[in-house]
Parts: sequence; C-alpha cells; structure tokens
Amino acid sequence: MTQTPTRRSDVPARDAPILITMGEPGGIGPEIAVAAFKTFNGKIGRRPLRLVGNASVFSVFGKIPMASLVASRSLPEKNALGRANPANTPAVIDAIDTAVAMAVQGAASAVVTAPIHKASLLHGGFEFAGHTEYLAKLTDARRAVMMLAGGGLRVVPLTIHVPLADVPKRINQVAIVETGEIILKSLKRDFGIARPRLAISGLNPHAGEDGEIGREERDIIAPACEALRAEATVLGPLPADTMFHEEARTRYDAALCMYHDQALIPLKTLAFWDGVNVTLGLPIVRTSPDHGTALDIAGKGKADPRSMIAAIRMAAQIADARFG
Amino acid sequence: MTQTPTRRSDVPARDAPILITMGEPGGIGPEIAVAAFKTFNGKIGRRPLRLVGNASVFSVFGKIPMASLVASRSLPEKNALGRANPANTPAVIDAIDTAVAMAVQGAASAVVTAPIHKASLLHGGFEFAGHTEYLAKLTDARRAVMMLAGGGLRVVPLTIHVPLADVPKRINQVAIVETGEIILKSLKRDFGIARPRLAISGLNPHAGEDGEIGREERDIIAPACEALRAEATVLGPLPADTMFHEEARTRYDAALCMYHDQALIPLKTLAFWDGVNVTLGLPIVRTSPDHGTALDIAGKGKADPRSMIAAIRMAAQIADARFG
Repeated sequence: MTQTPTRRSDVPARDAPILITMGEPGGIGPEIAVAAFKTFNGKIGRRPLRLVGNASVFSVFGKIPMASLVASRSLPEKNALGRANPANTPAVIDAIDTAVAMAVQGAASAVVTAPIHKASLLHGGFEFAGHTEYLAKLTDARRAVMMLAGGGLRVVPLTIHVPLADVPKRINQVAIVETGEIILKSLKRDFGIARPRLAISGLNPHAGEDGEIGREERDIIAPACEALRAEATVLGPLPADTMFHEEARTRYDAALCMYHDQALIPLKTLAFWDGVNVTLGLPIVRTSPDHGTALDIAGKGKADPRSMIAAIRMAAQIADARFG
Repeated sequence: MTQTPTRRSDVPARDAPILITMGEPGGIGPEIAVAAFKTFNGKIGRRPLRLVGNASVFSVFGKIPMASLVASRSLPEKNALGRANPANTPAVIDAIDTAVAMAVQGAASAVVTAPIHKASLLHGGFEFAGHTEYLAKLTDARRAVMMLAGGGLRVVPLTIHVPLADVPKRINQVAIVETGEIILKSLKRDFGIARPRLAISGLNPHAGEDGEIGREERDIIAPACEALRAEATVLGPLPADTMFHEEARTRYDAALCMYHDQALIPLKTLAFWDGVNVTLGLPIVRTSPDHGTALDIAGKGKADPRSMIAAIRMAAQIADARFG
C-alpha cells in the first residue's frame, strides 16, 4: 500500500491547496477537520483547503463542496464512530499516501494529518510507529524530527515513546547533533528565523550539577552542544526545570529535550488546546493536531477543533516561509 | 553541632513569631530576608517576623530593630558577599538549630529558611543533603517530604537529586504510599482542605500506555494509588504531560511526581519567581524560597525577594491552619 514518490519535491504553486487527511474515521479526526474547514471558510490566505478521504466520512459533520474533497480509497463497511476498525487500515493509509503524493509533486502546499489509531493500524498490517516515521519513509527522508509548538514555545523530544529506564541508553552525540541541525535548518527555512537560537536540556536534575548528579551532560550533551555551536547560537546543557518560564522562553527559538515528558510537560502545560505537531526534515510541509483519536467522544459534538485549526494555520505559515 | 529537641512540638502562642534564618551569609539570603522583612513591615498578621543570625550580616542591607533579631553564633571572620566560606558552617547551622529549637518549644510559629550552600557546608563538616533532611533529623521526623507550591500548583517529587538512570530503581510502593499519606495529611492539617485530592503521575511517557512503554505503572504505581484510595481521592497513574494544564490543575490539590524534573518543570514554568518550598511531615512549620544562594549576584541589589516573600506568607497561612 505504500507509494514511493521521488525524494525531491516540486515547489508548489502559490495557490496550491492545503490537504487535510481524514485520519482514523472512527475517531474525532473527520469531525475536527470539518469544523476547521468551516472555521476557515474553506480557504486560508490564497490557499484552498481540501479534505482527503471518503465523502461519507466527512458529510455526517456538515456539507463540504465536492471541489473541496480529494477522494481516496473507500471504507470496507459503514463507518462506526467511536470504534477504530482495523479493516479501515487501507483506507486510512491511502488518504495519507494520496496527500503526500500530491505534496511531493507540488500539487499541494502542505499536508495536515488528522489523528490515526496506531493499535488499530497495527492490527490492520501497518508497520510504522506513527505518521512521522511513515512520512519519512514515503518521502525518503533520512531523519524526520517531531516538533511540538504552542504557547510561544517550540520543543523537540530527542527520544519519544521510550520507557524512562531506557532513555539514558538512547542519548548519544550523533543523535543530538543531527537532530539539532535539522531543527536549526527548519527554524531558518520554515519559521523565517535568520539566526536561530537553540536551547538543549540536560538529562539529569540541575543538568547533572557538574557531574554530581549524572555524567551524561559532561560526556555526551555538552560536547554535542559544542559541535552545534560552530553553526549557531546554542544554549546548554540547561537544567530542564528552569528553562521554560516566561523570561527563559525569550532566550531561544526552539528547545531540544532529551525525552518525551521533559519536552511535552512544558508544552502541554502552556498550550494544551492548541499545540501543533510539526514534522521537520521532510521535503514536504506536514503538521497535525497534538492529540489522539479520542474515540470516546467521537461524533458526540464534544471534540475541540482548536489544535486542528492551529495545525492548519501553522502549515500555511510554514508554506509561506518555505515556498514564498 | 546538632541539638536534639523532643519530637512533639508545643503549640505556639497565636502571636509567636515567624523566624527567618540567615542561610549562607555570602549568598543572597540575608539580602532577601531583609527585603522581605521590610515588605511586611516586620509583621504578618498578628505574628512578628524575627531574623535569626548575626546582626552584622543583616545590617548591611538595612536597619533592623534589635527586638526583631535573634542572635546566633558569630561568623569567624568578616562576611564576604559572593563567596560561600566553609568556615561559616557552624554559624549557618547554629541559626537553623536556634530557630528549630524555638519552633519545637512553641516559642515560634514557623521557620522560614534562607538558602544554604550545600557544597560549602559539606566542606565545613555538615553531613546532610540539605535543609529538609537536617530538619527531619533535628525534629526526629520519620520521613520529611519536600513540596513546592506556586502558581496554584502543589507538587512533590518522589525522588529528588537522583541521576535519571537511577530513578526507576528508586520507585517503590512503600515510598509512594508513605509520601502520599504525608501529603494527604498535610493538605488537611496545613492547607485546610477537608477532602484532599491527590494526583499521582506515571513514570513513563503516557503513563506507560497499558504496559506498552514501561511496566512501572502497572507493577508499582497503580497498586500504590489503589492503596491510597482507601483513604482519599487519588487520581493516577496519570500521564505527566497532560496533568498540568489549566483545566487539569483544577482536578487535584497536590501532585505526587516520580522524579525531580517531572515535578519542577511545571512548577517553575508556571511560578518561577514566587515558588515556595514547604517541608511536610515535620512537627514544626517550615518553608523556604525555591532557589539557591545565587552567589554571583549577592550584594549587588539584584536579588529578587518574591520567593522569600511568598515563603513567609505561606508559613503564616500554614501556621494559621495548623495552630489556629
């Protein structure tokens, strides 16, 4: 079910659409996609919005003009809201494949993905940890990096869904330097920051307190910071607890953290409802809401579209910065 | 140099003073103590403030009435601001001993401690990890618990100055249950909350996601939550990244976290300048500012007294709740 587009993407036209994939049809994805579509009245700036998926999945939440739909593979059976059906896997993936192929070919400015249900897709034969890894594969990107943005803060966790006990083993200089380079490049290209400043956290309390509380800062993180300083302003290793207050946040443009909660606690504390997930390092522009499928509230009129709205807005801003 | 007061403290009179120890005389402690004393005009509610230490240490920052001083052991040489002198150790400790003895005897309502310099005290022969451990020893408390409060949030880290790689080994049911019990008791006794609600975080991303990302939640934290539920409302194990946003914070009165940064990132993100450290589980009331000695700015007029002011205010509130 994977297409393999060529690595280099063509530059999209200035009015190429922003595509929103349906995600898991049993979750809140189609609902917040339609709500966001209506909020923007189908267009953001000069770029029209297009929903990618099955008309029937979207239409239960409101009337969408046919011209604003990009049809993809049908569902095998009637959609059941509140339930993630592994039989939907080919349809869910096809919506992503279709959107990515259009973006790679320059027929779309950006892809905004509604949430997928990983466990269901796994049952359905999908082999990737999530969107980020799958998009890296589809676009032949060497390393894709997940950034979360919101509340004036941009954070990147170096390790993601890793048990805390395994985090220290996963910290190494190559990963920090390569990730840092992708972040710095993206801050310039996608966020229009000519001289980006990157903050890098320590792993241990007080960033190890000169080796008194752990050695990873001295042995791994500080040398990686030093290597990155050759090309940009890099702060760190910083104690993670004192790097996210209001004044501290003005000192850098993005923060690279060592593990999931170190990055996501401040982000979600400050911007729970409108955080955006951005994938850095891809030849295409991709954002998504910073939440899951929320099966328990799907179709009940309770889903909050703010994160999807913010994801669409950020996709448009990045497309502006990257493509002009 | 340790006195050993009796375990039970006598109930202080309603107008018993709140004592502020000088802390490391080379740091910002005396400076912020004097600034806070002036802010309160020497009294908070019916309780006078008293500075505990050497008159000369305080007097460089302003005139303090003799009656507002409690003298303790002298410094061996002239105080040098900006430098932590290990020779000061006996004087630093004596100020703490003096204040604690008064509180234990009911001659003071509360003790607010200015920051000490742990490395310097260690050189000077002091054997405790910090104030919290020393106060537990002085007052014969079985387990003292560090809570940080600010920005409407109260957090307790189960493990504190532990390298991240060692945190998982330190997590056990007994520690969680005993710490949770002390927090619940303190929320009633010290914060006047008749039916306290305690939130307990997971250790791993997404609180382990049903065992997919680590087993500590299933094996250790969930059973500890269950045990504590016999006596109070306990939420958890909760994913740490989604438990600190504005709406989530309304659901509990205190959060017990598994490690330093998990607790301190949200606290310091929300309340960097006015966080307060409160020691739970002691027979006396003790608070302190949530920062260190800041030797680099001592005596330069740059020290910010907000955290000390908040610590004094919280000490008075706790004394009101505990002693009436």
